[in-house]
Amino acid sequence: LLSKQIGINATHMRLPKTATEEEVSTHFRSKLHSETIHGLIVQLPLDSIHKIDTEKVTNAVAPEKDVDGLTSINAGKLSRGDLGDCFIPCTPNGCMDITLNVCVQNTVLSAKRFLETHQPGKWNISYTKLNLQKPVPSDIVISRSCVPKPVDRLAKEVGLLSDEVELYGKTKAKVQLNIVKRLQAQPDGKYVVVTGITPTPLGEGKSTTTIGLVQALGAHMKLNVFACVRQPSQGPTFGIKGGAAGGGYSQVIPMEEFNLHLTGDIHAITAANNLVAAAIDARMFHESTQSDKALYNRLVPLSGGQRKFSPIQLNRLKKLGIEKTDPSALTEEEITRFARLDMDPSSVTWQRVLDTNDRFLRKITIGQSPTEKGYTREAQFDITVASEIMAVLALTSSLEDMRQRLAKMVVATSRNGEPITTEDLGVSGALTVLMKDAIKPNLMQTLEGTPVFVHAGPFANIAHGNSSILADKIALKLVGPEGFVVTEAGFGADIGMEKFFNIKCRYSGLRPHVVVLVATVRALKMHGGGPTVTAGMPLPKEYVEENLELLENGCSNMRKQIENAKHFGVPVVVAVNGFKTDTEAELDLVCRMAKAAGAFDAVRCSHWAEGGAGAVALGQAVQRASEAPSNFKFLYDLELPIADKIRIIAQKIYGADDIELLPEAQHKVELYTKQGFGGLPICMAKTHLSLSHEADKKGVPTGFILPIRDIRASVGAGFLFPLVGTMPTIPGLPTRPCFYDIDLDPETEQVNGLF
Amino acid sequence: LLSKQIGINATHMRLPKTATEEEVSTHFRSKLHSETIHGLIVQLPLDSIHKIDTEKVTNAVAPEKDVDGLTSINAGKLSRGDLGDCFIPCTPNGCMDITLNVCVQNTVLSAKRFLETHQPGKWNISYTKLNLQKPVPSDIVISRSCVPKPVDRLAKEVGLLSDEVELYGKTKAKVQLNIVKRLQAQPDGKYVVVTGITPTPLGEGKSTTTIGLVQALGAHMKLNVFACVRQPSQGPTFGIKGGAAGGGYSQVIPMEEFNLHLTGDIHAITAANNLVAAAIDARMFHESTQSDKALYNRLVPLSGGQRKFSPIQLNRLKKLGIEKTDPSALTEEEITRFARLDMDPSSVTWQRVLDTNDRFLRKITIGQSPTEKGYTREAQFDITVASEIMAVLALTSSLEDMRQRLAKMVVATSRNGEPITTEDLGVSGALTVLMKDAIKPNLMQTLEGTPVFVHAGPFANIAHGNSSILADKIALKLVGPEGFVVTEAGFGADIGMEKFFNIKCRYSGLRPHVVVLVATVRALKMHGGGPTVTAGMPLPKEYVEENLELLENGCSNMRKQIENAKHFGVPVVVAVNGFKTDTEAELDLVCRMAKAAGAFDAVRCSHWAEGGAGAVALGQAVQRASEAPSNFKFLYDLELPIADKIRIIAQKIYGADDIELLPEAQHKVELYTKQGFGGLPICMAKTHLSLSHEADKKGVPTGFILPIRDIRASVGAGFLFPLVGTMPTIPGLPTRPCFYDIDLDPETEQVNGLF
Repeated sequence: LLSKQIGINATHMRLPKTATEEEVSTHFRSKLHSETIHGLIVQLPLDSIHKIDTEKVTNAVAPEKDVDGLTSINAGKLSRGDLGDCFIPCTPNGCMDITLNVCVQNTVLSAKRFLETHQPGKWNISYTKLNLQKPVPSDIVISRSCVPKPVDRLAKEVGLLSDEVELYGKTKAKVQLNIVKRLQAQPDGKYVVVTGITPTPLGEGKSTTTIGLVQALGAHMKLNVFACVRQPSQGPTFGIKGGAAGGGYSQVIPMEEFNLHLTGDIHAITAANNLVAAAIDARMFHESTQSDKALYNRLVPLSGGQRKFSPIQLNRLKKLGIEKTDPSALTEEEITRFARLDMDPSSVTWQRVLDTNDRFLRKITIGQSPTEKGYTREAQFDITVASEIMAVLALTSSLEDMRQRLAKMVVATSRNGEPITTEDLGVSGALTVLMKDAIKPNLMQTLEGTPVFVHAGPFANIAHGNSSILADKIALKLVGPEGFVVTEAGFGADIGMEKFFNIKCRYSGLRPHVVVLVATVRALKMHGGGPTVTAGMPLPKEYVEENLELLENGCSNMRKQIENAKHFGVPVVVAVNGFKTDTEAELDLVCRMAKAAGAFDAVRCSHWAEGGAGAVALGQAVQRASEAPSNFKFLYDLELPIADKIRIIAQKIYGADDIELLPEAQHKVELYTKQGFGGLPICMAKTHLSLSHEADKKGVPTGFILPIRDIRASVGAGFLFPLVGTMPTIPGLPTRPCFYDIDLDPETEQVNGLF
Repeated sequence: LLSKQIGINATHMRLPKTATEEEVSTHFRSKLHSETIHGLIVQLPLDSIHKIDTEKVTNAVAPEKDVDGLTSINAGKLSRGDLGDCFIPCTPNGCMDITLNVCVQNTVLSAKRFLETHQPGKWNISYTKLNLQKPVPSDIVISRSCVPKPVDRLAKEVGLLSDEVELYGKTKAKVQLNIVKRLQAQPDGKYVVVTGITPTPLGEGKSTTTIGLVQALGAHMKLNVFACVRQPSQGPTFGIKGGAAGGGYSQVIPMEEFNLHLTGDIHAITAANNLVAAAIDARMFHESTQSDKALYNRLVPLSGGQRKFSPIQLNRLKKLGIEKTDPSALTEEEITRFARLDMDPSSVTWQRVLDTNDRFLRKITIGQSPTEKGYTREAQFDITVASEIMAVLALTSSLEDMRQRLAKMVVATSRNGEPITTEDLGVSGALTVLMKDAIKPNLMQTLEGTPVFVHAGPFANIAHGNSSILADKIALKLVGPEGFVVTEAGFGADIGMEKFFNIKCRYSGLRPHVVVLVATVRALKMHGGGPTVTAGMPLPKEYVEENLELLENGCSNMRKQIENAKHFGVPVVVAVNGFKTDTEAELDLVCRMAKAAGAFDAVRCSHWAEGGAGAVALGQAVQRASEAPSNFKFLYDLELPIADKIRIIAQKIYGADDIELLPEAQHKVELYTKQGFGGLPICMAKTHLSLSHEADKKGVPTGFILPIRDIRASVGAGFLFPLVGTMPTIPGLPTRPCFYDIDLDPETEQVNGLF
């Protein structure tokens, strides 16, 4: 790290935790005699720094001339104890000329400055000035007009060491998970979740508010702040217009990098998901065409004169209760149980995925080539973000934990009712290998130069719709106790926020300080009885002219969503995301109604048109709310029966009178309870356009029974998802997809027409 | 660039080409007053350096004290004219203390050293020493035991400027295409293609030889050398064992990065390919459910009171000969022609792809969900590397050229016989956007620290099986006139090499200096009549014991393949890739037979066991051959009729008596000739296991008629591919896929069990 700053030829070595002074000294000397170097950067494990007497080491390796300022670096470093690097300058012949000596003095200054400015809780970060235009240009034009800081510089500004960062080009980087260990003793910052009222099909600017808020907290209020957002699915980018990187002057940039490929995490999920699918069908095929013995001989082949179980196969044996490690020791009955997964084709719940809006893959028949000998079956493709592997990525807390979750995923049921997992298929290790880079959060920046983690984007429908726990955790350490992490939950508060609390926070152990509830005059009017709005169509006049009556009626939905947040004991700040057609009286009314409904505060904001400057009032309200008392609690206990957990959500959050379990759902309640999955949290798959299960019921519907059609299990991710109605899991392309407008300028290499 | 070497706080700005001295000075001053910086790195466009008087600039920004050595940097830099950076140190208050002054002297030395050592044709590269073990460990163990150089250092060593490189983690980088322009005046190095005799199903070590050869030329003969290899498909990595990064002590490292994801190029192709597929079916669906008028109104919608064609739609109008730009000016007949592509569903040649070995997708029925209203059809998935977009990536020469090729791809035929392209679908721009990073070659390294470009990996069967033209071109410039670029062609010389010459070299304009033909005693014995070999099964004794008779018989295949190379007028060096079971007499015999057959030289090599040291004799032979006279010529003229071109390949390369066009092929000859695609080169899709079309005919089959079942067109990539027999285009998984052995160690993050 320091070597880059110092800019002289340096070398790295990592010493074992148990290194003695003699070993350190020997390492240094051998290094010094083998290469021409000007100095050494020593990385000492944090827990060993007290064991090593640095002065002795220094004397051992650079004894001839003392170097002014050197001891003070070491002292400074070691006394702080939070940074594992110390610097010992020396030359191969042990002598140091005046130039280098002076450089070293300079180094001392650099190192001191670095340490002073990189203390957690005090970033030395440069913000990017916005050059606001009116009317506000298109998202891609704004994104392009701002030159992002080199991401390695941003990483340094927020306290990441260069060894912890993997650059992906100049504007994106991955952060290695070893940072979790380095910062484990560091206290967390304040944790803010952004959610919304029940939205219109146009969306109400939750992402934009998330980004606007962090621009305000950072560039304007000079606080350490991170936004943690979901990676968007690439498929819809080419379907119907609508960016996911925020919008206007509150965006993650470069927005085309954000919306396309990013660092390949979603592609890795596609590959991993489809490897499981291929393994399922290939296994059913091979089992159906081979005897138990032939199957076993192929699964545990003779190689170099011996047969051996692979570690993954030993895991399966353990699960079956067969405590043997010698393949020749299995009985015939054990061979059958081991070799034959005996999956019921009709029980396969694992689908193939693509990150493409391909409606013709919603239902397909596979296996029709003669090579598959007639073993056809009906199957489907989902969009990649609907893969359970995406939910695993979002909910995992470490590489080890991800390995375990990826092994527990249930893909089908055997003919005698046993759940069959990816570990049974033998594919769990390969999945972990495919996902080893995807697990590292992606660092990007806002238009105003504040940091953003973009990591995981599970479907907010059949999954929980929240970005990753790992990104939130790392960000909370990086911002320090006075800093803020703002994360976004998908859809309205009844869906994304409820899952944020009951699923994500349950697995992460993190406790949020503030809920920001985004409301718009447009959506509230719709809830008050205004006409339907459709993406791509002009807005009816109710939405572009003042109408206080509709608005006041519609505030019922906001009131209910505020109550929903307060069920969890967390203060709520309402952010009224202003549109240019909103009137003063309308905006005032919403704020008044929000406070009357129990919001800690309610403020209007204009970050879309003005960037962070338009969300400073919101930032200040959030800061105050973060200091208010909060008393977080979950909505339900995991130990409750499955139906009770579903009922609590339906009644308390949706306002239903009761739930009705349809036969398939009733069957699954029994099956999952028997299979031991009854203790998982619940992830409702319900429309986001109404508090009820009927998308056209606006406001606060009452007097309804919530029908549960079916229940599915994402055992690896760790939740059951009851299906309320039918859920489309892969979108289609309209007659004129927005790809008609998208092109690359081969001269400038700029992307045109993307939002 | 220099700022890293100097290591002081520096800032970058890019000045317009037309900047005047005053503008430069103003830029500097504003920068100086806004931030605390120690100096400035000025990037001057090459063609503007003579316009700017650097002394004036220096005086303007740092006038108070002159800095010793400064003028000499600028002079040194500007007189060379090949590096667009110059360094002007200064401080915010315009004064400079002695410390910085001395540092600057140091900088002068660094800068001079940099320029001296980074002249093209003289790399200052550090090689990695191998620590050879016996017996040779597994590929992954060897790969892991070598610590790769940081890829930014490697990039610098081979003369890449830091602005031209995009890092992807610590071991992979993408090279930006602007380097093509910077180096355009630089003479090319020597161009070597590695090919082989007709292989066994086990492969004969062509990739290993490619890597061994560059390790020899670089680390042992100290020549500038680049290997250019294909990116392997990820699917088979989890199916049947077999690495693609070379093997033993001749590998590209880290091999797990090479074999998995890399920088996401193949994933980008999957996304682009499947966007086309989704667009085809969605378009057929929308056309079948809408009137011409409704279709037109949706395709050219009223937006903000006006209707406008997108640029891509204007391209389609042009193609239709409609010279109008006002949507309201089209006649009804023109509206119909514009809006209705009228694709015949049975004519769709575009398939979906996945980079997964999923046999159940070989033939499927799509569109079975009720939302698709009964518009089902039969379709299939291919493996991603079989996508035409992969072939486009491999054959393109620039971003502009790629845009054009991606627009020309023919996906179906309209009911009245017109070819329908991706441009007609409106998707060509989006494809280019999806492929904008994939077009940049990927830099990695060999075990011995020499540079490798990994870029594009088209199927060697229905496509041309060669790595990218762009990587070869950039590498040829980087190595300089005395250096070498070694590229590999897939399968045997009758397939990969023939396509390398007739397709790749035709499009690139590059002329190879040497053909390296890899032969093994094992494969030659098989051609001499030895028993069949199967992957995963023990070798019959003929292959592990001396058998000169079989071997001598089998040398006929090598003789024919040497002849094949000589058809193109290029000298051939035979590399006998030695296995430990080969005897002295056997190896001698092959070398003698090769020279008798007209090879320039024939040498045995042992790079698998010994790294580059085992291929030095090969390297020396290649160097001598590269100085021999060569007289390159194509095998056929493009203007010949399609059937004649196919016949020439069949007779001259395969030794067939004649070809037979089956009815479907005959129909396609007529169709493509009529559609104007008759002038494209030919890309034969034939088995690689025999010179004939029958995989079990070893040696040099004669007296056969080559049947041409069908012909397909890859119009964007730029070739016609005649199908000789049926070609599997997506592999399957065996009963025990090798994923059973693959896992990640969560503690060390190491991949285990991968080859």
